[in-house]
Order: sequence, then C-alpha cells, then structure tokens
Amino acid sequence: MKKTLQQHHSTLTKFLKQYFQQQQARFQNQIWTKDVFSRLYPYTTTGKMVRGSMVLTIWQFLAEQNSVVAQDQVIKLAAGIELFHSGLLIHDDIIDQDQLRRGQPAMHQQYSNWTKKHSQARHFGHSMAQCVGDICLMLSFDLLAEAKLEPAIENQLLKLWAKEITSVALAEMHDVELAMLKTKTTQAEILKMYLYKTGRYTFSLPFMTGAIAAQAKQTLIDNLAKLGEYLGIIFQIKDDELGLMAKQTKLGKPIGSDIREGKKTIFYHYLIKQAQPKDKAKIQQLFGNSKLTQQDIKFVQQQLKKTESFSAVNQLVDSYTAKAKRLIAQLKISKKNKQFLEKLLQYNLQRKY
Amino acid sequence: MKKTLQQHHSTLTKFLKQYFQQQQARFQNQIWTKDVFSRLYPYTTTGKMVRGSMVLTIWQFLAEQNSVVAQDQVIKLAAGIELFHSGLLIHDDIIDQDQLRRGQPAMHQQYSNWTKKHSQARHFGHSMAQCVGDICLMLSFDLLAEAKLEPAIENQLLKLWAKEITSVALAEMHDVELAMLKTKTTQAEILKMYLYKTGRYTFSLPFMTGAIAAQAKQTLIDNLAKLGEYLGIIFQIKDDELGLMAKQTKLGKPIGSDIREGKKTIFYHYLIKQAQPKDKAKIQQLFGNSKLTQQDIKFVQQQLKKTESFSAVNQLVDSYTAKAKRLIAQLKISKKNKQFLEKLLQYNLQRKY
Repeated sequence: MKKTLQQHHSTLTKFLKQYFQQQQARFQNQIWTKDVFSRLYPYTTTGKMVRGSMVLTIWQFLAEQNSVVAQDQVIKLAAGIELFHSGLLIHDDIIDQDQLRRGQPAMHQQYSNWTKKHSQARHFGHSMAQCVGDICLMLSFDLLAEAKLEPAIENQLLKLWAKEITSVALAEMHDVELAMLKTKTTQAEILKMYLYKTGRYTFSLPFMTGAIAAQAKQTLIDNLAKLGEYLGIIFQIKDDELGLMAKQTKLGKPIGSDIREGKKTIFYHYLIKQAQPKDKAKIQQLFGNSKLTQQDIKFVQQQLKKTESFSAVNQLVDSYTAKAKRLIAQLKISKKNKQFLEKLLQYNLQRKY
Repeated sequence: MKKTLQQHHSTLTKFLKQYFQQQQARFQNQIWTKDVFSRLYPYTTTGKMVRGSMVLTIWQFLAEQNSVVAQDQVIKLAAGIELFHSGLLIHDDIIDQDQLRRGQPAMHQQYSNWTKKHSQARHFGHSMAQCVGDICLMLSFDLLAEAKLEPAIENQLLKLWAKEITSVALAEMHDVELAMLKTKTTQAEILKMYLYKTGRYTFSLPFMTGAIAAQAKQTLIDNLAKLGEYLGIIFQIKDDELGLMAKQTKLGKPIGSDIREGKKTIFYHYLIKQAQPKDKAKIQQLFGNSKLTQQDIKFVQQQLKKTESFSAVNQLVDSYTAKAKRLIAQLKISKKNKQFLEKLLQYNLQRKY
C-alpha cells in the first residue's frame, strides 16, 4: 500500500510541476505570478498527498477496461483535490497562526519573513497568503475543467466539490468558535466538527471523486463516502494525538500549537473530564495561552498519560475501526482491493507523522 | 438603462433569497449554517449588483429566440458572479482592514462585534470572515453546476471563471504590495493592477459569461471582453475618486480608507508627481498612516484640487472613454443595444456612489 502511495505521489508531483509551469506562462502578465507558482510547487508536493492518491487508487479499483475516463484525466482530478487541500491549509494556518507547515514556514509566514523589517509584516503575510489560498481554490476548478470529462461526470463533480469545500469552511468556523470561545464541549460536538472539517474531505471526497470518475454504482459511492467518514475521523484523532505528543521534526509543524490555540480536540475533552480539580484549572488556563512554554507542553503531555484520556480515545477509535472493517467487508469490490483498504485503515491507525 | 439594472437587481435578490434558504436546509447539520446564510442575504443583495446585471443584460442582447440556455439558467450564472464578488469583497475588506461595506459593518467586523469583549475579537472576526469568503467562492461554482448548462458552455465557463478569479487574486497581491511596500509607482503599473483587480472581473467576466451563454461568436466575445476592460478601468478610477472625495453616507464605506491604507491609486500617483516639495512630504506621510484625522483627509482633498491631478486623471478617463465608444460602434449588435452600452459608459462616468 505504501508503494502505491509513493507511486501516486511521484505521478502527482510530476504533473504539478508541469501544471504550475503552464500557469506561470498563462498568468505571465502579472507581477506576482512567478513568485506564487514557485512557492506553490514545493508547498503542494512536500505533503503526503493522501487525498490525491485516494482519487487515483479508487478510480483504479473501479474503472472498467473501456472506461470513458482516462488516467490523465483522473490525475487532473487528483491534483485538483490536492490544490483544495493546499488552499485550505494556507487559510487554516492564518487562522491558527501556525508558523510551520510541512517542515517549511507556513505560507503567511513566508510572506511575513520576506518583509520582516516592515511594521506591518504580519498583516502583509496574512494578506498575501489569503490570496494564494484563494488561487489554490480556484485552480482546483481549473483542473476540473482541464480534465475535460464526460458532461454528466463533470457536472456531478462540480456540484460535489463545491458542496464539500463549503462544508469544510462551515466546520472551520465551528472549530474557530470552539477554540476561541468555548471551554466546555461535548464529544458529539467535537466529532461533528471532525466529520465535516477533516473526515469527509480527506477520504470521502477523494473516494467519491475516484468512484464517480469510474462511473461506479450509487450504492458503492455512498458506501465509500461512509467509509471515508470513519477513516477521516480516525485520521483527525491521530492528527490531534500527533500534534500533542510527536516530535516537531517528524511532524513538520510546531508542537503545542493545538494547546496554544485552545483547540477543542477529543483529547482536551477527556482531559478536562478526567483531570483532578487542581490540574483541571491549570489545563484550562494553558489551553488558549499564547505564551506557552516547553514545560507547559510537558505538563499537558504528562496529564494525558496520567489520566485515562488515551484509553477513552482509543475506545472511540476502536469503535470507528470496527465500523470501517464491517463496511469494507460489505463493499462490492475485489478481495484484493478490500485488503488494500484494510491496510489503509491500519496505516491510518499507526501513522507516526 | 437604470430601470433595466433595477429589474435585474430585483430578479437576483428574489433568486438569492430562495437560494440561501435552500443552502440553509442543505447544510443544516452544521452549527454556523444559519448564521452564515442569514448574513449573506443582506450582504449580497445590498450592493448595486452591476456584475450580475451585466450577465443578464448581455445574454438578453445576444440570445436567439430558440436559445439552448434559458433565463432561469442565466439567473444562476448571474448570481454566481455576484457571489464571487461578495467573496472577494469579504476577503478584500480583511486585507484592507475596512470596517464598513455597503453601509453595513464589513463581514469581519460583524464577527468581531459579535464577540467584542474577547481579547482576540479582531482575529476571531478575520478568521470567521475568511471562511465566509471561501463559502461564497465555492457557492459560485455550485450555481454553475446548478445551472445545468449545455456541456460545452459549462466547461467553457468553468475554465473562464477559475481563470479570471485567479487573476483577481494575483492582482490583489500586487495591490497589497503597492499599498504596503511602495511609495513610488508608475502609471503603467497602476493601470495594470486596475485591469486585473477590477477591470476584467467587473465587466469583462460578466459580459463574456452572458455572451458565452448566448453562444455568441468568438470575435464578439473578445470585443466585449476588451470593452469590459475599458469600462472596468474607468469604474476603478471613479471608485478611487469617490473613495477620496464622496460623503460616507452615499458610499457605504469609510472615507479616507484608501489614504489610511496607503493605496497607490492613480490619484496618488499624480498627486505625488505634481505636489510642491513640502506638501509632497506630508502627503507621503499621510498615505499609509493608520492614525489619519478628518483634517488630514481634508488636506489631501485640498491638495487634489490644488494640483492638476484631476485634470490629468480626467485626460486618462477621456482616452478610455474614446476607446470604449469606438469599440461599441464596431460591435455587431443592434443599434438599440449599442445605445444601452453607451448609457452604461455614461453611468460609469457619472456615478456618485
């Protein structure tokens, strides 16, 4: 499975290199064009490209030999989904005030650094990155047009993409509200936010895109969307765990940022629920504290280990894993493909960055 | 002509009311849905809707009696273009730190006000509005899908819309750079920024959208795009003039904001070129000064009147007006429609808000 992901990564990297060169020529009249596309190439290709790979994987699973859609066309769709992801990350990092992404300075940080002596460098960085994010979102649709699909498929994907990214933005608002304004949340509320902010667009959207391009039956598309939700929620929970516990070098983003921003992750929920009264007060004070020290981060990590937070979250992960396994078993796809999806589920459970 | 604009405004307002109600139902699972759509309805419908109206106008000019595209479909396209505009304005106001738009608090200001006692109210407002802007950009494409056009037309518009909005974002970066980092600019540089930031998407994009929906000949589409550039540049110059000279009540946005943000408008260019050395230093100090007083604004207004800035800019406007008139005369459309476009040009030259 890892080999397949690597192959797709390399296919998409090659494609994006050429695509960005074309865009550089296409928008050559404008001053910032060269700068933007030379930043976007490393930015988009340094990630794991899980989403784009999933488009290609599912399409390869399901496409008939005489498929009306060819591999070149699906590569454009996969690259389009990756550009959504980059655009959303660029915007998300502005919101979260994260300075590091994929081991490089976050996009807004790149522009702030560029003019760091300026008194308004921070606002300059935010402004420029907001525009670059918008460009990514637009170019996703350019790639959909470029794929020149069968009309019914193009229309269906256009509707799906616009809907799912709208959903992500609505969930992002929920995430901002939880982080900045709330100290108490319910598990149900957090899981709903995970579902729409990450779950559906990380797996459901790529699965559905690949399946629609392969002209799969509606029941299969629906089941893949559901499977994507389970995988996506597990993915987000792991993401939060890594954000709290992993080393920065592996993660490519700063440790402790979720604490600093007061993110209401599922770990925070259980931590608050299970901590001793005196620790609880300190934890609540640390979450959302912009002046967090290394020691504070360690304190939270110790509390996570001390309480039963991990085991509570693991139970939750287990229940999603069981649901995902049952659904994979039911899918009308080959045994080999089912094995691939199970490996994907394992990879999701075990990933270290 | 004004009556036609009013009719289109009312058609689009009615349509958007219903569309936002549908979106509220469609995304009802999410916490912020109701809030977002109840804000977007007044936000999108309080403007002049020049862009949406132009889509409908040009389509009505050019569509054959047995057109493959129906009026209902074109209304969706027009509403889509209006949503692009709203999304771009929301993002633009964050960048410009403008507090007022269309006589209401700017979108980021609405969210900052909502939580104004919070120490991070400003960042909360920016974050939430950034998401609302993204939602608008996405729903434009939803409307394109909803229009269910002939495949070739859908594909052509998908490509065009993604391209033109990418161009706007690139030009916005240029605008940010000019405002924050440059004190000197050339006329050519400013006009290029105007062309891509406003010109093409205010008139060329709606004209082309209407013409493509009417299956017009490519030469006519190209000529309308060119005419849109002339009209758009005049529109932006007028916008800058109103931003410097008009009363706030009429304008629906704060007076002096272009000075406060150090916007490198064509007026700034001539002002700097023509002012007396001692005044020039003061002007340069005021542009980009966040602590601008009413008296400072008056000083700049007096300088504009004192120098030959207006007459220099008027000469420029005259040259674009002459080009636009020549092009209208050459268009292969009815005499009545040419008269309409000439009135549109006059309206553009004379508008007071």
